[in-house]
This record gives sequence, structure tokens and C-alpha cells, in this order.
Amino acid sequence: MKSYNVAVVGATGMVGQKMLEVLAELKFPIANLYPMASKRSAGKEILFNKKSYVVQELCDDAFDQDIDIALFSAGGDTSERFSPIAAAKGVIVIDNSSAFRMDPTVPLVVPEVNPEDLDWHKNIIANPNCSTIQAVVALKPLYDAFGIKRIVYSTYQAVSGSGVKGYADLERGIKGEENTFYPHPIAYNCLPHIDSFMDNGYTKEEIKMVNETQKILHDNSLRITATTVRVPVYYAHSESINVELKNEFNVDDVKTLYRKAPGIVLEDDPQNNIYPMAINAENKDEVFVGRIRRDFSLDNGVNLWVVADNIRKGAASNAVQIAFALIERKLI
Amino acid sequence: MKSYNVAVVGATGMVGQKMLEVLAELKFPIANLYPMASKRSAGKEILFNKKSYVVQELCDDAFDQDIDIALFSAGGDTSERFSPIAAAKGVIVIDNSSAFRMDPTVPLVVPEVNPEDLDWHKNIIANPNCSTIQAVVALKPLYDAFGIKRIVYSTYQAVSGSGVKGYADLERGIKGEENTFYPHPIAYNCLPHIDSFMDNGYTKEEIKMVNETQKILHDNSLRITATTVRVPVYYAHSESINVELKNEFNVDDVKTLYRKAPGIVLEDDPQNNIYPMAINAENKDEVFVGRIRRDFSLDNGVNLWVVADNIRKGAASNAVQIAFALIERKLI
Repeated sequence: MKSYNVAVVGATGMVGQKMLEVLAELKFPIANLYPMASKRSAGKEILFNKKSYVVQELCDDAFDQDIDIALFSAGGDTSERFSPIAAAKGVIVIDNSSAFRMDPTVPLVVPEVNPEDLDWHKNIIANPNCSTIQAVVALKPLYDAFGIKRIVYSTYQAVSGSGVKGYADLERGIKGEENTFYPHPIAYNCLPHIDSFMDNGYTKEEIKMVNETQKILHDNSLRITATTVRVPVYYAHSESINVELKNEFNVDDVKTLYRKAPGIVLEDDPQNNIYPMAINAENKDEVFVGRIRRDFSLDNGVNLWVVADNIRKGAASNAVQIAFALIERKLI
Repeated sequence: MKSYNVAVVGATGMVGQKMLEVLAELKFPIANLYPMASKRSAGKEILFNKKSYVVQELCDDAFDQDIDIALFSAGGDTSERFSPIAAAKGVIVIDNSSAFRMDPTVPLVVPEVNPEDLDWHKNIIANPNCSTIQAVVALKPLYDAFGIKRIVYSTYQAVSGSGVKGYADLERGIKGEENTFYPHPIAYNCLPHIDSFMDNGYTKEEIKMVNETQKILHDNSLRITATTVRVPVYYAHSESINVELKNEFNVDDVKTLYRKAPGIVLEDDPQNNIYPMAINAENKDEVFVGRIRRDFSLDNGVNLWVVADNIRKGAASNAVQIAFALIERKLI
């Protein structure tokens, strides 16, 4: 099997570290590894497959090296500046930031949902927002089988979605110390505030869920609204998703679809207290779906409860799965 | 001002204690107080207005005493057995359990919303479910001004909603100890499971929200669905409410309505990080409404974020407010 030279940009951050962990765990065929980070973190040593690597500084000529794929997770500004440089030098960038997600020339890909969009990539591929990834994995089988008219998202998002700083703020709160990162305490509280607020009253996170769902499912006629909320959970986002289908369905058929769907684990036996939960999804790559039930307020409504590890499937694992899909589709 | 003989049944429980606290704080005109509880707790001493009272055992002849009003918060079975006994003896029972809520001969009342239903009481008045109370307070101004077609509820409910045992389970989980009350750990987790599951896949809590909302707003044509979720928060329930209105509206008019609505505090200045939060609602009697924004996926859709203290407005305070409303309406 051919192997590849892989750069991980933002290698010392929460998602970057998880990318390295997932690359090793899923045995991605790596020839040479190039961990990169900002000047501040350059020079640090990191471990990969029990071997030590020195983190390189991300700079304009970093991609003059022989690199096939670069997984970026270093924030939107860094991606905006360095992704085009890498891409111009023939590196395929898989970018975890929001910088290019809505760029019509950049595919936005969840491998279980729209791998075919990889075929038209121009060296930059965007990894969707964490809360969108798990939602579209769960929605895709419904979309294909019954069609979807409208979606109402309400999310229960883990602090690790804000990186190390969010995580630390919950730890501080639990110890009775003051918050230094979120605008309010997150311990024993719910914050209906993820990313910044826009003039229309929505957060950027909410609008990402709307726009990215439409882009990934190739359907701008999809009607979507979202309320995104931070909860005192360390890992894994939970989502209450209300779906209006276009066509008739029955709940058993939906369960059968989910039993066969790629990347999904059906956990739906409420009488035995089995339903998706954040603490069970932690460190898994699958999307967990349960609480499937008819919404009696609509002709073709269904309610879902969808949980996934936001750092793995919501970020690092999806990026690595995109890299695998590139190999599978002979695009690299 | 006339004063009344008041019994508090379940006086040693979490809601019962809060009822005593609220009766004192809101200066309900009490002549004699009769704290009651099961045999197990009878004989205990409790404090009310700095005076000590011995808790009486709740038994068949407990209501032979001269009692005007009994606030019940001792579970459905106790209410089912003793409320009719008290009512038959001329006591007005305000019952916090679910036993009589859907009984068509029993008014289900939130004083800001449907105080007129008190007029036809037959000595038993039901206090709605905590998650319903705060929702209908927020929905009533919209219902009156624009009409409501459909509601999608997703809740973020505090552990105190399960009483002392739920509270203690979160404390245990935070200390790293095992859960003994909930079927799964609640610390750093979300449980899409409140009350027991029914055959249709819904929890009783979810169905309560549907049925009680219709009953309180006197509108069985209201289309409603709900997903109710326990989160690691001690006090105050948060709710993401998606509403389809019947008529056109604008967001500023909705805010104006909420500024004037009884029992509501508008907290909606997201640019300054002002929105309703559980930690701010704790120990308040108002319902906090914010994140008001147009749902662009519908012609007349609006999203709300609604927070209230589940033990105060969601239980004890609403019951005491019903007692005050009885006086105001000269029904006692």
C-alpha cells in the first residue's frame, strides 16, 4: 500500500493532538509526519506512534517540503493565510476551520454523506462544523428515503468544542473558581451562546448549522432553524432534532435504516434505558442515534436524539476519514 | 386582611420546604400553619417565620382540623388518596402532583395565564408540571397577540426537578462517585429521559408538556411536540422553544410584549452577553425570556430561550401564587 507524507497544522491544540491520535489508531499510511504549529509552540516535542517529533513552525515555506496531505486545525485566520499557499504547492489541505466551508469552490465533506464532492476538490477540502457533522450523518438516511422539508435543531454542546480553554473553564467552575474564558460560568449552567452573535440575533454556530447542512445535502430548499447551547459536559455533543419529512414513513423503517447506515449506531431501547448519551459517545467515531419517535404534531414528523464525540467524529476523525476517502477514490 | 389556616403536605420534601419559604417570603396571610408529611417524617420540627412547628402525620382525619388551604407536594399516590378527602371536608387543595392535572373537573392553573379557571374549581386545583409552567408563561403573550399553530420544545432540565435524590446524584457524580438514583451518571452528561417511557417512545414528561400546554391555553388544536432532557444543572430549567405563529409578527413587537407581560423578565441583549441563564434564574419567581429571533424556515416562526427556577416558579411559587389568586378573586 502506498504511504503519504502528512502534515498536521495546529499539532499541539486539542483537535490537532486528536488528529495525531486518530491517524495512528486508524493506521493511516504515513511515510513522513510533519507536525506544525505557530511560533509559540514550535520546537515542542510530540509523540506519534511512540516516536518523538519536533513541532515545526508554520511559515510561508513550510510547504516547500514533500507533503501530500495537510490536516489543518489552527483557527480560521491561520487557514485563510496558509491553506492557499499549501494548496498552490500541490498539498491537499483538509481544513477544520470555518474559513472555506461556504466557499463554492471548496467541497465540504462528511465521508458517509457526500464523499462524491471530493472528486471536484481543488486542493482544499473543508471539514464541517462539529455540530453539523453528526447531524447530517443522522439525517442523510432520512433524506434519501423520505425527503426532508424542515429541520429544527436544539443542541447540547460540550465545552471541549471551545478547545482547551473551554475545558479548563468547566474544570475551574466545578472547583468553585471563576470563569476566565466563557462570558458566564458554565458549571451547573447552560449558555445559549456558541461563537459570536450576528445582527439577526443568531449565533454564527446556529447559522453554520443551517448553511452547512444545506451545502452537504446539496439542497438549498431545506428549511432549517437552530438554537445552539453550551452545557456542562466535557466531551460529545447531544442534539435534539425535529424533522419534517416530505413523505410518509413509519418508525420501524427508520430504525431499520439506521441499523444499516454507515457510521451510525442505533441506541434505541428506552424501556431498558438505552439511548445515546455523551459519556458513552466519548472517544468513539460513530454517531449515536436514538429516541426515534413520531412527532404527532405533523403529518410526517420525526424526533431524533443524536450524540457524537465532537473532537473525534466532529473534527479529527472526520478529517482523517476524508484523507482515507481520498485514497479510496484514487484522488491522491 | 383576613388570614387563613394553611396546611403544607410533604413539608419536609424539597418542594414542600420551598413552599414554606415562599409562603413566608411573599407574606401569605397565615393564621395557623399545619405542616404534614408521611409517618416517616412526622414528628420532625420545621421552622416557619422563625417559629418552630412539629410535622403532623398525614392521615385520614388530618383534615378534620380547621384548614382553609392545603398545598400538596407529596407525590401522585399521596395526592390521589388524600386530596379528595381534604376536598370533601371543604379544604381547597392546590396539588403539585400530576394526579389531577388532566382531570377535566380540575382546573390546571398558572396565575399569569389562566387565573379565570380558578372560578370553577371544586376544591382541587392542579399545579402544572415545572417545564410546562415556564413555557406557558412565555407563550401566552404570543398566543394572545398572534395565535399559535405549532410548538417544538427541547428542554434542559435541572436535577432538582427529581427532588433531593436527583440533586444528590449530581453531587455524587461530581465527586467521582457512582450514581444511585438516575439510571446513568448525570455529571458531565445529558440524559434524554425524564419520568418513565411510554409505548409510543415518549417520556411521560414530554407528554405532560403537550397535554398541559393545551389544557392551560384552552386549545386542543395546538400542535405540540417535546424532547425533555436532564442536564447537569442544580436549579432552573432552560427551554429551547420553536413556535409557529398563526399571524405575521415582528421581533421588536414580541420584545415589547414581553417587557409588559406579567411574571416575565426580558433578557435579550446578546451583543452584551445578556440572555436567560439557569444560574441567574435561581431563587427567582419570574420567567426569563431571551434569544428571541425570527425562524427563517417558516413564514411566522420565532425561536425563544426560556429559563425559570423549577422549584420556585415551576412548583412552590406557582402554588402559592394560586393561593393568592384565590384571595384576589374572592374564591376563599
